[in-house]
Amino acid sequence: MHYLDHAATTPVLEEVKDAMLRVYEEDFGNPSSVHAYGRRARELVEDARDRLAAAVGASPAEIVFTGGGTEADNLALKGAASKLRGNGNHIVTTTFEHHGVLDAIEWLEHQGFEVTRVPVTRDGVVDPAAVAAAVRPQTIVVSVMAVNNEIGTIQDITGIVAVVRKANPNALVHTDAVQALGNIPVDVHAWGVDLAAFSAHKLGGPKGVGALFVRASVPVEAVIHGGGQERGLRSGTLNVAGIAGFGIAAEIAAKEVYEKTERLGELRDRLLEGIRTAVPDVVVNGTLDNRVAGNLHVSITGTDGETLLLLLDRAGIAVSTGSACQSGAVDPSHVLLAIGSDKDLAKGSIRFSLGRASSASDVAAALEALPDIVARARKVG
Amino acid sequence: MHYLDHAATTPVLEEVKDAMLRVYEEDFGNPSSVHAYGRRARELVEDARDRLAAAVGASPAEIVFTGGGTEADNLALKGAASKLRGNGNHIVTTTFEHHGVLDAIEWLEHQGFEVTRVPVTRDGVVDPAAVAAAVRPQTIVVSVMAVNNEIGTIQDITGIVAVVRKANPNALVHTDAVQALGNIPVDVHAWGVDLAAFSAHKLGGPKGVGALFVRASVPVEAVIHGGGQERGLRSGTLNVAGIAGFGIAAEIAAKEVYEKTERLGELRDRLLEGIRTAVPDVVVNGTLDNRVAGNLHVSITGTDGETLLLLLDRAGIAVSTGSACQSGAVDPSHVLLAIGSDKDLAKGSIRFSLGRASSASDVAAALEALPDIVARARKVG
Repeated sequence: MHYLDHAATTPVLEEVKDAMLRVYEEDFGNPSSVHAYGRRARELVEDARDRLAAAVGASPAEIVFTGGGTEADNLALKGAASKLRGNGNHIVTTTFEHHGVLDAIEWLEHQGFEVTRVPVTRDGVVDPAAVAAAVRPQTIVVSVMAVNNEIGTIQDITGIVAVVRKANPNALVHTDAVQALGNIPVDVHAWGVDLAAFSAHKLGGPKGVGALFVRASVPVEAVIHGGGQERGLRSGTLNVAGIAGFGIAAEIAAKEVYEKTERLGELRDRLLEGIRTAVPDVVVNGTLDNRVAGNLHVSITGTDGETLLLLLDRAGIAVSTGSACQSGAVDPSHVLLAIGSDKDLAKGSIRFSLGRASSASDVAAALEALPDIVARARKVG
Repeated sequence: MHYLDHAATTPVLEEVKDAMLRVYEEDFGNPSSVHAYGRRARELVEDARDRLAAAVGASPAEIVFTGGGTEADNLALKGAASKLRGNGNHIVTTTFEHHGVLDAIEWLEHQGFEVTRVPVTRDGVVDPAAVAAAVRPQTIVVSVMAVNNEIGTIQDITGIVAVVRKANPNALVHTDAVQALGNIPVDVHAWGVDLAAFSAHKLGGPKGVGALFVRASVPVEAVIHGGGQERGLRSGTLNVAGIAGFGIAAEIAAKEVYEKTERLGELRDRLLEGIRTAVPDVVVNGTLDNRVAGNLHVSITGTDGETLLLLLDRAGIAVSTGSACQSGAVDPSHVLLAIGSDKDLAKGSIRFSLGRASSASDVAAALEALPDIVARARKVG
């Protein structure tokens, strides 16, 4: 089997698994408990907070652990909108965000907030000037993803923050950085954002753990209320094992990002070259110039993405059509529509996403299987 | 070390750990993915859903997995209140609920809902008649916990549902059953509730996983919006390993509940007898007649709970003062105040909670350490 779907989720790293296993076997205490079991669990959580903070350029006190990236996006957007309602009711985002952002903002729209969705270029890039033009005196939050989850394009977050600050210094800037951590260097303070969402399972950590960076003194209302954990921003017993695993995964991801980028970039280029040589009429979605190294997203004329995916799956090659969360849906992905793809062409799209475990043999296997599969899919389509 | 704090959290069962380890090693796919890795992950989630549903007497389609018990309580209460706002704006609960319920309802109160908090008896029991008296035509949700997390008293949920149905057939009934599953037999349909919250880590499962039972056709609005997982009720990539572990823990808990109850009841009675013999002026909080077998909650005159806890901890015995979420707080627990405890007496309270791993030696160790520790705490206090 060849797993080329790392943007959907990643294998758990050996070091992460070992750390979680140790928690399950030895350190099962509740970090809210005062006794030795509780103190040990609390230490593990704070150690992980230190590691994650270092990996993203934050202070440990600026990290709030959540149950995942989607929850972190919800906490950022609903939490900030709720606190800042007095300042205005306008939210700015883009047309190609992850559903954790899109749907949270749509919900806020139903609650009476006004939303401007900035279009993206055909290259899959958000133009800072377009964001600036959308900001008003009533704008309270601007949300632009750092890396798109489908086409892998990297956004100029620093540039976007700069123009937003100029247009309205009171507006907060949130970024869904779920696909950024591990794929590009992340430094939330260099970016200048107020809020940033992360997820453990995209970088060799476990599923069910995420985090929100909340810049010091930025006001956020909780989405989940209860025992007051995480300084009242996210109540509920902390997932000690998962958080410990997240801390280690983040540390490794940050350490290896340059080397990984170089290696995966070469593999990805080899994959693209091979596809272009063997398969006629292939369109790459999104710019190749400013894109995470492991991502290749192509549309293949005259095919259906689901058919390609299933035939590749039968050949032992795992890929995705559009984002994992949307798999099973028949409409073309909102991301492809946002970058102006032709609707019919967009339906025949697949995403290859390489990760830490990917090797030349995975690329070779995909290249060996693809020409015949595309030919068959074209007969069906 | 002797761990007598199972109501705060429990050691992870060997079977649960093995199942989670298998997921981390072999089945890391995203259950939303269409390929073989995804399908395998989806199978694990659905298998766990079957197991949990069977353990609580629900249909699998009535189970929504969440990031914990507190999130499940929030989803139940905010989700139902949001959907039923058109029917009325009144919520009924009790004065001694877990903070996951109390604080979610307090938040709803700030959003304009009216709340009636029914008092509990000195025994720590909710009188169904008192609940019935609080229900109005505008009542949309009634929330009463199945088992109190501090004093372990069991509530007559079936009786409460019956009187609520009679008083207002449109009102939904939610129960926080986090401390019930594994400690008493649970059958949500026999109880007749519409909503019930569960947590994995209270019964040998991992932290960071919970579930909400949502009776078929009961309307609930999501708290976390995004990719549409869990039929749109809880978006975010599913915690496959944690959910698999929860399923196994729930199955074991349901299978062993009668045997466990009998064994822990004997141990608990021995502990109480020993304390009464060796320590003068001890008051048991809450009735002993209708109470989970592993719980003993006592106030010891002239002492401070924190001092007792720390001295016991130094002697290698882990207990709690009040609920784990509240540890560190200096005020007496809201549960003790709700049952009318004297404020000074309440401050000198400790909770022993026995679980599956508890043995006679744990009880013997506590009994050996306690008289001297109480004497010392009384000198300090």
